[in-house]
Amino acid sequence: MTLKFALLGAGRIGKVHARAISGNPDVELSVVADASAEAAKAISDQYGCRVSTIDAIATDPVLDAVIICTPTNTHADLIEMFARARKAIFCEKPVDLDVTRAQACLAVVRDTGAKLMLGFQRRYDPHFSAVKKAIADGRIGEVEMIQIVSRDPGAPPIDYIKTSGGIFRDMTIHDFDMARFLLSEEPVSVYATASVLTDKAIAGIDFDSASVTLTTASGKHCTISNSRRATYGYDQRVEVHGSKGTICVENQRPVTIELATAVGFTRPALHDFFMTRYVEAYAAEIAAFVSVVKNGTSPSPSGEDGLRALMLADAALRSASQGVVVAL
Amino acid sequence: MTLKFALLGAGRIGKVHARAISGNPDVELSVVADASAEAAKAISDQYGCRVSTIDAIATDPVLDAVIICTPTNTHADLIEMFARARKAIFCEKPVDLDVTRAQACLAVVRDTGAKLMLGFQRRYDPHFSAVKKAIADGRIGEVEMIQIVSRDPGAPPIDYIKTSGGIFRDMTIHDFDMARFLLSEEPVSVYATASVLTDKAIAGIDFDSASVTLTTASGKHCTISNSRRATYGYDQRVEVHGSKGTICVENQRPVTIELATAVGFTRPALHDFFMTRYVEAYAAEIAAFVSVVKNGTSPSPSGEDGLRALMLADAALRSASQGVVVAL
Amino acid sequence: MTLKFALLGAGRIGKVHARAISGNPDVELSVVADASAEAAKAISDQYGCRVSTIDAIATDPVLDAVIICTPTNTHADLIEMFARARKAIFCEKPVDLDVTRAQACLAVVRDTGAKLMLGFQRRYDPHFSAVKKAIADGRIGEVEMIQIVSRDPGAPPIDYIKTSGGIFRDMTIHDFDMARFLLSEEPVSVYATASVLTDKAIAGIDFDSASVTLTTASGKHCTISNSRRATYGYDQRVEVHGSKGTICVENQRPVTIELATAVGFTRPALHDFFMTRYVEAYAAEIAAFVSVVKNGTSPSPSGEDGLRALMLADAALRSASQGVVVAL
Amino acid sequence: MTLKFALLGAGRIGKVHARAISGNPDVELSVVADASAEAAKAISDQYGCRVSTIDAIATDPVLDAVIICTPTNTHADLIEMFARARKAIFCEKPVDLDVTRAQACLAVVRDTGAKLMLGFQRRYDPHFSAVKKAIADGRIGEVEMIQIVSRDPGAPPIDYIKTSGGIFRDMTIHDFDMARFLLSEEPVSVYATASVLTDKAIAGIDFDSASVTLTTASGKHCTISNSRRATYGYDQRVEVHGSKGTICVENQRPVTIELATAVGFTRPALHDFFMTRYVEAYAAEIAAFVSVVKNGTSPSPSGEDGLRALMLADAALRSASQGVVVAL
Repeated sequence: MTLKFALLGAGRIGKVHARAISGNPDVELSVVADASAEAAKAISDQYGCRVSTIDAIATDPVLDAVIICTPTNTHADLIEMFARARKAIFCEKPVDLDVTRAQACLAVVRDTGAKLMLGFQRRYDPHFSAVKKAIADGRIGEVEMIQIVSRDPGAPPIDYIKTSGGIFRDMTIHDFDMARFLLSEEPVSVYATASVLTDKAIAGIDFDSASVTLTTASGKHCTISNSRRATYGYDQRVEVHGSKGTICVENQRPVTIELATAVGFTRPALHDFFMTRYVEAYAAEIAAFVSVVKNGTSPSPSGEDGLRALMLADAALRSASQGVVVAL
Repeated sequence: MTLKFALLGAGRIGKVHARAISGNPDVELSVVADASAEAAKAISDQYGCRVSTIDAIATDPVLDAVIICTPTNTHADLIEMFARARKAIFCEKPVDLDVTRAQACLAVVRDTGAKLMLGFQRRYDPHFSAVKKAIADGRIGEVEMIQIVSRDPGAPPIDYIKTSGGIFRDMTIHDFDMARFLLSEEPVSVYATASVLTDKAIAGIDFDSASVTLTTASGKHCTISNSRRATYGYDQRVEVHGSKGTICVENQRPVTIELATAVGFTRPALHDFFMTRYVEAYAAEIAAFVSVVKNGTSPSPSGEDGLRALMLADAALRSASQGVVVAL
Repeated sequence: MTLKFALLGAGRIGKVHARAISGNPDVELSVVADASAEAAKAISDQYGCRVSTIDAIATDPVLDAVIICTPTNTHADLIEMFARARKAIFCEKPVDLDVTRAQACLAVVRDTGAKLMLGFQRRYDPHFSAVKKAIADGRIGEVEMIQIVSRDPGAPPIDYIKTSGGIFRDMTIHDFDMARFLLSEEPVSVYATASVLTDKAIAGIDFDSASVTLTTASGKHCTISNSRRATYGYDQRVEVHGSKGTICVENQRPVTIELATAVGFTRPALHDFFMTRYVEAYAAEIAAFVSVVKNGTSPSPSGEDGLRALMLADAALRSASQGVVVAL
Repeated sequence: MTLKFALLGAGRIGKVHARAISGNPDVELSVVADASAEAAKAISDQYGCRVSTIDAIATDPVLDAVIICTPTNTHADLIEMFARARKAIFCEKPVDLDVTRAQACLAVVRDTGAKLMLGFQRRYDPHFSAVKKAIADGRIGEVEMIQIVSRDPGAPPIDYIKTSGGIFRDMTIHDFDMARFLLSEEPVSVYATASVLTDKAIAGIDFDSASVTLTTASGKHCTISNSRRATYGYDQRVEVHGSKGTICVENQRPVTIELATAVGFTRPALHDFFMTRYVEAYAAEIAAFVSVVKNGTSPSPSGEDGLRALMLADAALRSASQGVVVAL
């Protein structure tokens, strides 16, 4: 039986999920809602789904689940609304930029017994998930130290940065989730140093360059290196060092050719955008959510995972701002 | 305006094209025909198109083009039939295994003015086409020597081999097309040596290992290395050496991780099948055919290209069988 | 004119320098001294030099310089002795494990005007020095963030660890020097987290796994990742991220072949020892010291460089022990 | 006991061997002879050996072996002379450019029981020899197809080319030896196509671009691709495809760094000269010859190996000149 999904929010990431849904044989995009009638119509035209409102969607008995892609400040309210409406919920990260608000929201999810999956798509990237599997299979023995490099091709507009919650809650949060995903042990201390190196206009508003170190109770470390600028494309790497070996994810490039001339051997730059880099991840993420709805598998990442990543982001911000090590 | 395509043949490669068509916004898969009602129904169910017959398709005025994916021995007849029916034609390689029959068929295409594009999908692979573009942009200067390596993970069933026309017409023919595509000059001599090394059951029927050398009038060389067995996956490489440099296509692997242990640094095996390796190529190939139909761009590869590749295959077979160099 | 060098200490690293000297056309190994007559004789036999005593060497007017490879706790005394004896001095790192003693020693060097070069050989590795040159040439713009990975194949014997001064003064100190070499700006804060993960016998004596972050006044970061165990060999990497690009040093392996089979594509493990990894570096280091003696070029690294690296090691130890960020 | 070697010929390759000998603890360079007194003196000065004449060397009872690095047209005479003088002989390739003369020379070697080793140094390159060992260890199963790429950075002077015996006897001959070394089966047919693409001045004198295919009785193939011009350095690769896998040698570069910028990821060019590329091979080659002299191990390559490679070169030249396949 084909599941019926509603899409809330027809912006950039909403389109990504609409496409992923349309390519999944087990699910149908039934309806879309967006504050912009034009944006909703574009999705409707392309995928042949209805346009509706959030309220109507909440009471539509044929719908199995909602995909929440609206602005961040609406996430917690919408999660609560659809938890009470007994729909399965996929929500883009974060639950909320405020930990207390996120905790209150997750209490509603718990109380209603709603299924909630958060949108950290990297867990579903075939390369990152192959690393996870290799670790689970014991290929590197005990995990000891992790290094995550995550660099964007360029900083987002200043207006976006102002409402983003800052680099740790907006960008590093994906790395915090990946760190927890691969460490399989909670960090007990966080150290972060951050600065503005790529664009002086960011100074006073946010940071654009950050180095974070997480330590767990058993003495595992994870370092994260973030920059808002990488001239060579979207740089996304992880390396996990263990007692029996090390495993890493190589960067992805859209074209894998090599030119050798007198200046050397040159391969093309990387993907320049997360949406082309993570096409396969978004498809696998929706497939995982379909399985949550259909087969009752546990959502990964869960709302709790989202909360934990947010708490690490808050700790990192405090560490970087005050120059101290923060215990969790 | 959306184009309407008919699919003739709902087998393995037919499914590949149905999928590529469904992902293309400029075209609609209207109808499918197959000798097997079951196969046709499967496509019909998945993509919501009608099931019909070849005769009905030929006279249906709303259809713009046919995608011919039927058995090889029907290609020439169908091309002629649809050329006369004034449909644009995309036909899987080859036009025919017999050069004379192929030439007669192409004469009909010429006389009717039909648009015919052949299915050598590698020209549309983003990596191979990036090499073609780099050459056209003068990045390696004058092309001098080309090396193509093309190895299958394993030999097809003996029954397939028996009707395939042999390794040169079935497998190397893709490499002959790539050689012509990149050389931009016709070979004037062909040398081939071939043997049975992977499976003795093939002996007397065909070869499974072949090395071919093409030479052009200006003294450019192209060597092709084929094997029906590669334990590490579907091996598809090309390297073009020129006066200013060399450019190559690297192999593709589904997962790009690396594991370092006491035994060394290991990356996973390659794709194990042409259909996963060439997903992007099939999509781009259909997009190119759409442009042929819609905008009147020249088909690449054309029927003539298909004929030339076939003539190289015939020459290679004669060279390998008789141990002589064959002039063209 | 050929320079005449004396070697003090005929142990493992002494042999490395004896070999480097014998391969340098501008210098002659004239004499060797070691507490072990046997060790001194071995060098004497192999390179045809005399055996003598430290006191005799200090007063021998024909000798231009000494190469100090004796135990760490003798370094400061010997440097002072030969500074007063007006010999040029090359000394293996560190000047001393104690900062105050090192400072006193360097004061003598300053007062006597002696030439002193320290043995951080990585500065002379062709790969690391190519990175330094690329930065100096502006290839990556402004340096922003550096990542150093330095992992040993296995921990040294516990007895060595006990007198080594600990991982930061023994192992990380090379990375501190590399960090300073590439940052071209002094760190103002140090954070380190360290644990025992590879061998419980080390617990209470030292650490075997460490992550360190340095931050400079202008907001540049450098992270260092150390482990005493890497199953795949001697792992020595650096990556420097700048405003115009990123540059990295790839690991070195003694054999560069690749085997592709059903389990994937495997390249051999790395060098298993610093002495095979850094053969070229040791030769270039001696050549640089020859230039210091002969042409009066500035020693790099200087005694001051050695002191700074030691101060970073002390700060890292305090940070890791107390769980605080240490300002410099 | 240290062996005593005489060096005949103090030119470019003579210097290479003098250096390799001086680095070998089991042998001493006792004497050098060269038509140029200046060249001989340079070696004598650098390595502290005597200068003498060929005649005196032949009758000097303390000398164990000669290293023949004189011009090609003197090789056969000198080999015969020193075979009769009961010295072990290492001779740079080839024995002679003429097969008949080479055969006569080898008959003298056979009759006198002299030890003769030929100078195809690639067999001793650690990377090529690791491939040979992996094959011997069964890592790729049965050898099926080999591909050798061998490209020089640039063509030698026309005057050298005129006396070189042509590209097949001068350059490809190394690849013929490598082919035989790895095939472990004699080729029974040779096909070559060759042209002048890099420098028109070579036309009529020699070829600068050649593709050769060797086939053995059991149906193994080896293709060789040669060019006298590679803008990116000295390109030396081999790939051996077998029933269980494929193994290849990667190219060597003096500096292994990678720069990532907006134009892509660039690694430096390769070595630009065979003498820097094969430093380790020349040292291992001399060590192997020392073992031949000292321990009586079989010389590899032998004089017979040199003859076989020459016969393949002759066959290739006939094939390329006449456009025919040549049976051996």
